[in-house]
Amino acid sequence: MANGPVKHVVLFKFKDHCDEALVNEMIEGYKALPGKIEHMKHFEYGADMSIENLHQGFTHCFITTFADSEGRDAYIPHQAHKDYVEVLFPNLDKVLVIDFVPTVVK
Amino acid sequence: MANGPVKHVVLFKFKDHCDEALVNEMIEGYKALPGKIEHMKHFEYGADMSIENLHQGFTHCFITTFADSEGRDAYIPHQAHKDYVEVLFPNLDKVLVIDFVPTVVK
Repeated sequence: MANGPVKHVVLFKFKDHCDEALVNEMIEGYKALPGKIEHMKHFEYGADMSIENLHQGFTHCFITTFADSEGRDAYIPHQAHKDYVEVLFPNLDKVLVIDFVPTVVK
Repeated sequence: MANGPVKHVVLFKFKDHCDEALVNEMIEGYKALPGKIEHMKHFEYGADMSIENLHQGFTHCFITTFADSEGRDAYIPHQAHKDYVEVLFPNLDKVLVIDFVPTVVK
């Protein structure tokens, strides 16, 4: 489908029961994935520090870059990804995922 | 506040009245901003092509990189940004903005 790299943007809002240790554990789990899934060519993340109050409650953003849509398609059903999602999702109040083939303007 | 670059992730869901021409006009308006606002060091965007059905209705993603939080702070009240937002917002059903200082894992 897509010819170029695919950016995979993921936002989390953790449930209220998640303390700092559990949040960090969930983030460490995500950070471990690029070492297990070769299709993740670039991976970066951070905590929200926006000032416009349009974050809709989401607190963390993770951006993975795949070489192409085939890389993304291989990532989704990868066992390491599935195992992580199984541990993660009970701790999430909201999750948002959007993928796009970037047009670089500047 | 932040020492490193700031990624500014913006998601749009357009209102139902927006046809393709109007959507393209709104995107072109955003694409014109980096030429007017020096603080926008990198800018890329694209339409959602995710396959997990977790996009929460959002259809477009835009990522601006600022050199630091001061760059982001100067962008928000910039007249060119304010003028664009004034034209844009009546056409948006939903908007989400999250900023973060990226930790690059891979």
